[in-house]
Amino acid sequence: MKPVLYSYFRSSCSWRVRIALALKGIEYETHPIHLLKDGGHQLSDEYKKLNPMGQVPALVIDGHTLADSLSIIEYLDETRPDPPLFPRNDPHKKAQVRQVSHSIAGGIQPIQNLSVLKYLGDERKFEWGHHWINKGFQNLEKILQNTSGKYCVGDAVSMADLCLVPQVYNANRFKVDMSQFPIISRIHEDLNKLEAFKAAHPSKQPDCPDEMRE
Amino acid sequence: MKPVLYSYFRSSCSWRVRIALALKGIEYETHPIHLLKDGGHQLSDEYKKLNPMGQVPALVIDGHTLADSLSIIEYLDETRPDPPLFPRNDPHKKAQVRQVSHSIAGGIQPIQNLSVLKYLGDERKFEWGHHWINKGFQNLEKILQNTSGKYCVGDAVSMADLCLVPQVYNANRFKVDMSQFPIISRIHEDLNKLEAFKAAHPSKQPDCPDEMRE
Repeated sequence: MKPVLYSYFRSSCSWRVRIALALKGIEYETHPIHLLKDGGHQLSDEYKKLNPMGQVPALVIDGHTLADSLSIIEYLDETRPDPPLFPRNDPHKKAQVRQVSHSIAGGIQPIQNLSVLKYLGDERKFEWGHHWINKGFQNLEKILQNTSGKYCVGDAVSMADLCLVPQVYNANRFKVDMSQFPIISRIHEDLNKLEAFKAAHPSKQPDCPDEMRE
Repeated sequence: MKPVLYSYFRSSCSWRVRIALALKGIEYETHPIHLLKDGGHQLSDEYKKLNPMGQVPALVIDGHTLADSLSIIEYLDETRPDPPLFPRNDPHKKAQVRQVSHSIAGGIQPIQNLSVLKYLGDERKFEWGHHWINKGFQNLEKILQNTSGKYCVGDAVSMADLCLVPQVYNANRFKVDMSQFPIISRIHEDLNKLEAFKAAHPSKQPDCPDEMRE
């Protein structure tokens, strides 16, 4: 049985996992979960059996149902080691990959995600999203001065890069001035040349509305 | 040279790392960083050389300066495997440990941390903190129904438990009704009986003000 990914085309967390699946050449079926229709299908009782957090993605694989994007990516890397998403046998460099990943997936994205913006209210949401992404990228740019090579940590694609690309997409949605961040911008451009990153893009997903296809 | 932990007594992220260091029996020096004085010492140029994110903790160990609590904990577990903070040779259970950890360290704490509350404004901050911890714990309680034994994942202490304890402390600060969460409450109580958890408590830290010692 093929793995099944419960996903939303524009969700950062779904996108990270799609890149990992594509890099590792894992074939899977996409089961779209619409985050906006009917108040959000991710909050239905049926979906919450798969992921009690009521968030995408969830991945059914190897007889398990996994949730939480970074946990899924680490699982995929442990069970399908090639190509690696972490430097092997280098705990310090692995810590750098996790630091960059968490600075985005823990330090930026959760503060500007859909449910937080909804609770915050329409009046502040654009300025709020802009503020936290801008501030997070100022910090990230400094971290990358120490860790980056061709990609976020050294010259090999890692979990950190899977977090970077969807966050840049959100930065653009919130009109963050990316010219402040030359390292992030350069890495983002290089990553987008890779086939796995192209295949995982929101515009290539079955639930992407026609008017948003590129 | 002893490792040096840059820490604030009441910071959740510092606290997680202190528990890991105590469990593994690693001796270290504490260098307190006051998060409130003079607008926050974590934002000084000097400290930001250690951690460009301007957040505690940072740990100087093995000739490296590490930042980000979960990355530090994973590093300590890779370089000092005993006692383990993850189930060994079980990628599915490891994914559960990370899922619980991220649901707190990525899904709750960042939305109610000091800088977010400050930016939000005094008027909404208490209700906001209460809302997100309460909501996060509702989800977490459901996850723990599937994963917990004596502790968050099975019967061994793991990284997930290191995240749980400081978050319950914050839940109490924000007057969350913990009687809604019998599993979280039971695990929290059991963890607090362990010596490493006692030693890492804010009230035992050198920078804890006298009036807050227990």
